[in-house]
Amino acid sequence: MRPDNRALDQVRSVKMTRDYTAYAEGSVLVEFGNTKVLCNATVEENVPRWLKGQGKGWVTAEYGMLPRSTHSRMRREAASGKQGGRTMEIQRLIARSLRAVVDLEAMGEIMVTVDCDVIQADGGTRTASISGASVAMADAFEKLVAAGKLKANPMKGHVAAVSVGMVEGEARCDLEYVEDSAADTDMNVVMTEEGKMIEVQGTAEGEPFSHEELLELLALANKGIRDIVEIQKETLSQ
Amino acid sequence: MRPDNRALDQVRSVKMTRDYTAYAEGSVLVEFGNTKVLCNATVEENVPRWLKGQGKGWVTAEYGMLPRSTHSRMRREAASGKQGGRTMEIQRLIARSLRAVVDLEAMGEIMVTVDCDVIQADGGTRTASISGASVAMADAFEKLVAAGKLKANPMKGHVAAVSVGMVEGEARCDLEYVEDSAADTDMNVVMTEEGKMIEVQGTAEGEPFSHEELLELLALANKGIRDIVEIQKETLSQ
Amino acid sequence: MRPDNRALDQVRSVKMTRDYTAYAEGSVLVEFGNTKVLCNATVEENVPRWLKGQGKGWVTAEYGMLPRSTHSRMRREAASGKQGGRTMEIQRLIARSLRAVVDLEAMGEIMVTVDCDVIQADGGTRTASISGASVAMADAFEKLVAAGKLKANPMKGHVAAVSVGMVEGEARCDLEYVEDSAADTDMNVVMTEEGKMIEVQGTAEGEPFSHEELLELLALANKGIRDIVEIQKETLSQ
Amino acid sequence: MRPDNRALDQVRSVKMTRDYTAYAEGSVLVEFGNTKVLCNATVEENVPRWLKGQGKGWVTAEYGMLPRSTHSRMRREAASGKQGGRTMEIQRLIARSLRAVVDLEAMGEIMVTVDCDVIQADGGTRTASISGASVAMADAFEKLVAAGKLKANPMKGHVAAVSVGMVEGEARCDLEYVEDSAADTDMNVVMTEEGKMIEVQGTAEGEPFSHEELLELLALANKGIRDIVEIQKETLSQ
Amino acid sequence: MRPDNRALDQVRSVKMTRDYTAYAEGSVLVEFGNTKVLCNATVEENVPRWLKGQGKGWVTAEYGMLPRSTHSRMRREAASGKQGGRTMEIQRLIARSLRAVVDLEAMGEIMVTVDCDVIQADGGTRTASISGASVAMADAFEKLVAAGKLKANPMKGHVAAVSVGMVEGEARCDLEYVEDSAADTDMNVVMTEEGKMIEVQGTAEGEPFSHEELLELLALANKGIRDIVEIQKETLSQ
Amino acid sequence: MRPDNRALDQVRSVKMTRDYTAYAEGSVLVEFGNTKVLCNATVEENVPRWLKGQGKGWVTAEYGMLPRSTHSRMRREAASGKQGGRTMEIQRLIARSLRAVVDLEAMGEIMVTVDCDVIQADGGTRTASISGASVAMADAFEKLVAAGKLKANPMKGHVAAVSVGMVEGEARCDLEYVEDSAADTDMNVVMTEEGKMIEVQGTAEGEPFSHEELLELLALANKGIRDIVEIQKETLSQ
Repeated sequence: MRPDNRALDQVRSVKMTRDYTAYAEGSVLVEFGNTKVLCNATVEENVPRWLKGQGKGWVTAEYGMLPRSTHSRMRREAASGKQGGRTMEIQRLIARSLRAVVDLEAMGEIMVTVDCDVIQADGGTRTASISGASVAMADAFEKLVAAGKLKANPMKGHVAAVSVGMVEGEARCDLEYVEDSAADTDMNVVMTEEGKMIEVQGTAEGEPFSHEELLELLALANKGIRDIVEIQKETLSQ
Repeated sequence: MRPDNRALDQVRSVKMTRDYTAYAEGSVLVEFGNTKVLCNATVEENVPRWLKGQGKGWVTAEYGMLPRSTHSRMRREAASGKQGGRTMEIQRLIARSLRAVVDLEAMGEIMVTVDCDVIQADGGTRTASISGASVAMADAFEKLVAAGKLKANPMKGHVAAVSVGMVEGEARCDLEYVEDSAADTDMNVVMTEEGKMIEVQGTAEGEPFSHEELLELLALANKGIRDIVEIQKETLSQ
Repeated sequence: MRPDNRALDQVRSVKMTRDYTAYAEGSVLVEFGNTKVLCNATVEENVPRWLKGQGKGWVTAEYGMLPRSTHSRMRREAASGKQGGRTMEIQRLIARSLRAVVDLEAMGEIMVTVDCDVIQADGGTRTASISGASVAMADAFEKLVAAGKLKANPMKGHVAAVSVGMVEGEARCDLEYVEDSAADTDMNVVMTEEGKMIEVQGTAEGEPFSHEELLELLALANKGIRDIVEIQKETLSQ
Repeated sequence: MRPDNRALDQVRSVKMTRDYTAYAEGSVLVEFGNTKVLCNATVEENVPRWLKGQGKGWVTAEYGMLPRSTHSRMRREAASGKQGGRTMEIQRLIARSLRAVVDLEAMGEIMVTVDCDVIQADGGTRTASISGASVAMADAFEKLVAAGKLKANPMKGHVAAVSVGMVEGEARCDLEYVEDSAADTDMNVVMTEEGKMIEVQGTAEGEPFSHEELLELLALANKGIRDIVEIQKETLSQ
Repeated sequence: MRPDNRALDQVRSVKMTRDYTAYAEGSVLVEFGNTKVLCNATVEENVPRWLKGQGKGWVTAEYGMLPRSTHSRMRREAASGKQGGRTMEIQRLIARSLRAVVDLEAMGEIMVTVDCDVIQADGGTRTASISGASVAMADAFEKLVAAGKLKANPMKGHVAAVSVGMVEGEARCDLEYVEDSAADTDMNVVMTEEGKMIEVQGTAEGEPFSHEELLELLALANKGIRDIVEIQKETLSQ
Repeated sequence: MRPDNRALDQVRSVKMTRDYTAYAEGSVLVEFGNTKVLCNATVEENVPRWLKGQGKGWVTAEYGMLPRSTHSRMRREAASGKQGGRTMEIQRLIARSLRAVVDLEAMGEIMVTVDCDVIQADGGTRTASISGASVAMADAFEKLVAAGKLKANPMKGHVAAVSVGMVEGEARCDLEYVEDSAADTDMNVVMTEEGKMIEVQGTAEGEPFSHEELLELLALANKGIRDIVEIQKETLSQ
């Protein structure tokens, strides 16, 4: 049995709260069970230097964990003077995932930065970040449209992500922390709302995994992501 | 008139939510109007190296702002590779304020770290941090007492803080951002629940201030802090 | 046609030169076409602090590029004062891949560090690094066995890796730089010599990819890795 | 009795040596008893980027301690790779204090940087720095006037500072190191020559302090600062 | 006897391989016995900011050691976050030596950066770097001439370097590692092809050295450098 | 004519003030004309980790320049977050020079750190540092002898240094800044009081130098150092 009696293919209770903070152009608190991430999208009217003058926009992301978002306190990255390898990996993944659903040409020379800050971590913070950031970014673009700065929202659709894994011989969807720690294989999948893949990152933490296990995990991810996309759409329709 | 029709000696609406996150030994979301700070107290059973073997405890604090807690996005300190001077000043102030109300001898060799992370900033983040951290620390100590690790709570009482300032010729209590920006003098006052002073930091941003103005500001601070202490007590009694 | 008339499922000419440098316990120059990486395995008889006293070993890796291994000069990471996100991602991947084929318990309290330094980069440096590092590590372990410090080589088998991708609508194996730059999807696959997967990292650089494309890429990777494992075995048999 | 038989309201022997070094536009060695700080004012004809084009000037300060200015050697901040929190607090305080007595509009686009480097530390280094820096800055402005680059000295008057504190139940003025270490309350006060306050920073190191104690300390500070201003004026008149 | 039966005034077997890597404008692998350094010269058509607009060029150098170029593994400088003092000393020496034989005025606003990366270290890495870098730089300039970007090669001649030292009472030329470790005096000499000196750096590691010993060492260096210059010329004539 | 009518072989007016600061075990302000360096020797009763348990001592040095010790203000190294290459070169040179005249075995497990901080720079700061540091170190050792912690002073004699150079075709001793800037060759020589060499560092800033010029410079250095050693002895005899 899973810790909370979830079915193997079931995502945790997902909740997205828009306008969670007051100043960001898009601000979403996303909760996947006990995992809580605040996704704030900022719009700035200038692009990185290497992109200037090309008439294109850019989307980037930063990721951080509050020191006590975890069971035992982690050292604050600002105090240690650098962002660790895991942080950098994750923020690069979030940024690539978001850019995959945006028409950068249609943005004009605008930059959107989505900050994903983990308030509480119970597994799946990177996939929750992507799923919440998509909604925060959508809100930010809508504000630009409403203000007449963009003719149309340059997003081609939603992007969502989920972690899946082999735990005690079972393929499970949306691992929470205790499952993630016990997983032989852990895979993060990022998809568009049409179910096409943007990123697949599978890692054998224990035993290597077979082709069949990979297929099983992908099928679970596909279902989970479809469920999350429904919640994204519902959230934005309110 | 003040932005929200407050009386000159009136603190903003203050709200303290305990157990805001799940893992910290004490976790309080403190809100002073639109200023929101998450104060998480962590207990660790070892003290800094320079204090080892003396049978005493230690209390420290760290402070950070989420990049989009402010009107325009600030650079993430973890990304810039160091904490700025303002951050260091504030976290040193919070830590000194907390230690002033704790009997370090009575703690034994235990360390409490309180992380104050600003979710949304509308003035007074350092004073809100101190006021919330006092409650988070109290909760952490109570857990140690309940677990039999401490005989009694080593806090001598509450500590609370408020900012006061001269704005447009008026002494005002608990400045919000627009008032703070316009203030000629800005003063942060930290007091014990008995009204004794722990820190007084007054700065003339514009015109230097007179002795009379200082006295006026101190009186306002005294009243404001008494009001905040009431809320701290009420919060802990729930 | 591919740049060098290779078949779609064909890896580049692969060459592994053992004992390339004189001091490392294992030293392999691995060449995949014009990509050249020097993999040096170092044995040290102490493990990281967090692992001390558990009787287990550890395998780690570091990755770097010489500033002029690329078409235009890159800034030296030692001079810029930090390793970039890409470097950290890659060295974490190499290390995980190597650990997946080592019985850490059987190593005893020994640490192996494999330095992968790119002399010349023409695509696929991370997969070449993994493939070469496996051989360098094998040599290092053999020396420990020969010296009587280990009873048997603790490797469970070889690990190899290859990049595959969708380029101009075709699935291709072992992308070189010009193909990689033009790829819609780029996937790095790490497998054991039995063809089980250790890591799968697929990224849509342009268009998202379908399930069918993923399967096609995995099949290509499987074949490519089998070819590389043959070369690893042959290299070690000399 | 105080260590050197001083009266409670008496500042230490204060000495200011102008033109202590040869290149700085203003150079003052300030001595408060055994505390010795070299204050060098530099004039540069460009302002920080964020101030460009506004026709205003800027005054800033940096503070440092020679490693062996103290009883036991401190680590050199340049070697440790960052300035500590105390250093940053102090240099921000010095800079704010100096700006408070300068008409920045009248300066034109000129920047003055005052470096305060502690040669020997016996308490009160930050207040000695402010008191000496005011004279060094005055000299620098006078040179600009003499060179015809400014019509008049843009200083509105002198600024001086002193530390006061509660030691063994007594309010004392201008604490030296042994007093400072034993103080229950330590307060730094910065005033204009007219006796208006620019900064008040009081900290309870031991027992919290009462309103009456605060008043007593402010009165002492006021007297001490008047004495220091006399010495500043005398120094500049030579 | 010297470790490899060399005569006291004999340099090790020196080998220079041009075009060792494919992308650099000049690429030379230089070997002095077991010391192997890869020297890659990069041409960039812009100069450092402080030199802009003066119509002159610049030559600079960077130096690094692969972590396992040495008997025991050294920490990677990119990982430790800074270049050590020895690295900085050496790269400044290489750069000065190269600039001494280039007519910077004749270069135009072009910058040449020579990266010297040590693949294997057996003493004399800095002198091998200089000797190899001179050839790599010559190749880079020849390419600029061939491309019509320079009228003539702005080098005034070759520069070469060798280490000499007092070992067991004998003056020896081109020390390898075991000799270097045992040397009482170690001297690096950099000369032009005409035998004029660019740098002389002699250090007493053990006993101070006399004037006569200095003269003996200089004579050895002179002979060694002439031999190396022959090899440089021969290499470039191929 | 030299700027101050000095003879070609004449060192500037040299002055050494002992006990310049109060806390350091040895404290010397050394002045060579307008160059002023404060040399503070600190004694600590523990050695670097790598030397522990060997019964030997260690001598090290650190060097810094006050930001306005120079004609135009230099950036403070503590603020820029690292020590530059020049600083590292110089402090390594000072430390090697001092160690060359100390019997480390005879010191026991004690460490002496000499901080050389430049108050005013007019050329020759590194050679002045060495010459002054030798006296500061001697004072520190004498205190250890007086306190009964050492049986005898472990110094084998004095060490002194001077810069010499070819300026406008003339060999000159003890260059001041304007000469140094104009020098074709600049050479720093460090010698024992018996005239044996510890370091010789000659650099052609402009034209390469000949063997004859080198000999001429060494002769000048020899005379200059003998003069400085006289002043060291006289200073210590007072």
